Amino acid sequence: MPTPPTFDDVRAAAERIRGHAHRTPVLTSRRIDAATGARLFFKCENFQRMGAFKFRGAFNALSRFDEDQRRSGVVTYSSGNHAQGIALAANILGIPATILMPDDAPESKVAATLGYGASVVRFDRYTEDREEIGRALAADKGLTLVPPYDHPDIIAGQGTATMELLEQAGELDVLFVCLGGGGLLSGAALAARALSPSCRVVGVEPEAGDDGVRSLRTGSIVHIDTPVTIADGAQTQHLGVLPFEIIRRDVDEIVTASDAELVAAMRVFASTMKIVVEPTGCLAFAAVRRLAPELAGQRVGVIVSGGNVDLDRFAALVAG
Amino acid sequence: MPTPPTFDDVRAAAERIRGHAHRTPVLTSRRIDAATGARLFFKCENFQRMGAFKFRGAFNALSRFDEDQRRSGVVTYSSGNHAQGIALAANILGIPATILMPDDAPESKVAATLGYGASVVRFDRYTEDREEIGRALAADKGLTLVPPYDHPDIIAGQGTATMELLEQAGELDVLFVCLGGGGLLSGAALAARALSPSCRVVGVEPEAGDDGVRSLRTGSIVHIDTPVTIADGAQTQHLGVLPFEIIRRDVDEIVTASDAELVAAMRVFASTMKIVVEPTGCLAFAAVRRLAPELAGQRVGVIVSGGNVDLDRFAALVAG
Repeated sequence: MPTPPTFDDVRAAAERIRGHAHRTPVLTSRRIDAATGARLFFKCENFQRMGAFKFRGAFNALSRFDEDQRRSGVVTYSSGNHAQGIALAANILGIPATILMPDDAPESKVAATLGYGASVVRFDRYTEDREEIGRALAADKGLTLVPPYDHPDIIAGQGTATMELLEQAGELDVLFVCLGGGGLLSGAALAARALSPSCRVVGVEPEAGDDGVRSLRTGSIVHIDTPVTIADGAQTQHLGVLPFEIIRRDVDEIVTASDAELVAAMRVFASTMKIVVEPTGCLAFAAVRRLAPELAGQRVGVIVSGGNVDLDRFAALVAG
Repeated sequence: MPTPPTFDDVRAAAERIRGHAHRTPVLTSRRIDAATGARLFFKCENFQRMGAFKFRGAFNALSRFDEDQRRSGVVTYSSGNHAQGIALAANILGIPATILMPDDAPESKVAATLGYGASVVRFDRYTEDREEIGRALAADKGLTLVPPYDHPDIIAGQGTATMELLEQAGELDVLFVCLGGGGLLSGAALAARALSPSCRVVGVEPEAGDDGVRSLRTGSIVHIDTPVTIADGAQTQHLGVLPFEIIRRDVDEIVTASDAELVAAMRVFASTMKIVVEPTGCLAFAAVRRLAPELAGQRVGVIVSGGNVDLDRFAALVAG
């Protein structure tokens, strides 16, 4: 396993993705500030290319490929935003991409991935191990495997979202970031430690899968069954090894949010801020809403991680 | 009737609203650009305070009140965004506000207006004339009437949205703006003529109420019955006198969009751009989508006028 990235790697990633990733806006809402008593800065990665922060890490990782790697191509496994991030970044950079997706992945996500020009290989998620298939494909065909979070270039790329937020909003008292495998949170912690040293960094994971809380408490990575939650981007069974090294050092606390709290946050995003946020993207704000009494008067960063949710599902979730 | 405002009035309005109105972001989407063949710049007034551009004109008009007017207060009639714009601006400036709303106005809009501290006077829209009640209240109680669009300070304030768009995006080949009474469109035309002289300005009204098209064709203001359309912000029976003077001089064309086209545009806004837009706010983009073959390669401005739509209604409209 390589060593964890540092803030210098985040800064280098910011240079690589410039002009390719959007510098997404930071939105504020006086009504929400009045309701919570804090001053909130929402980093809107739902406006990122392909609809989520994952494009940052994917583009950063692929742009570091050497000639041989570019020619042979990339492989990854994901049924979600990382797949689309890799597919779009590979398309831009002219690198062949192979994405492993489970047989029961939503057709809309398969179609989006194919739409970016990637090849999709299906597997049975109940009988086959995606990491094993990925490694076999990499070995057989000389492809380079870029996993969704346990990779220094992925972490450094995701860290650029927080780097931008701190440039746009100034220093913060506390930053809330959603947590699945830990790529976004560990990158955020690197940026926050460097640019806003007194900023507390809080990870937020689904209540149904509190392996992060328990990992931080016990000091080693806790494995769980796939959690049942609407936050499909955070249905991870364990933190990544590299992210955890950073998280245990630089993250102050991990808290959880329930599915009901995610839906309530999603409704506020839509009705007050007029933005569409996927369930996973509501984790940070859901925690802020519950913890508001402790945040009075503080400058609070909130990473809105993505907006990729089928319209029918979105409509069903926000309808009263 | 006073004389129509000029671009100097728009510039003065921009100074007055600075620090009070949001300088809303301009969003772009490579996917939508690829689908339409044009280069689109979306001015997101759905992110404006109280959720629509109407705050600009309201704040500009009220900030020009003299001491007597401020003490006595403002009155207006509207069941929609203008009411909330006046109520919020009056609240900020410490001016008492009275809003005439029909008995059958949605309770959510009445509650929002009361929430901004305004007094609400109900009337029966089938047997009473709101303009007459407004004038009577103004005369009896010494209130100043600020109508929704037929007022130079309202037009100048709304023009600041396009002024900002042109500062943010640079010169445009064509600008699409929704059209009800004409306050937003006439203000937009003033700004476009001054800052991007070769830019074509196109108004877009609901197909069910094409009085604007017919007014431009005949050269005089055409009156119609209240049109039946989901674009509730554009259910006007005729253009304002002052807006029409500007529109006939500075607007190149008026086109229409059907309710079905509005829903299709609303779905693209939500699924691709991750933003919530009210039906009226979809008018400009709906026209762009239909006229895309004529816009290939052009730099196109699109005013997204507001995002105030009840979540249940929004969910029902975007669900497949």
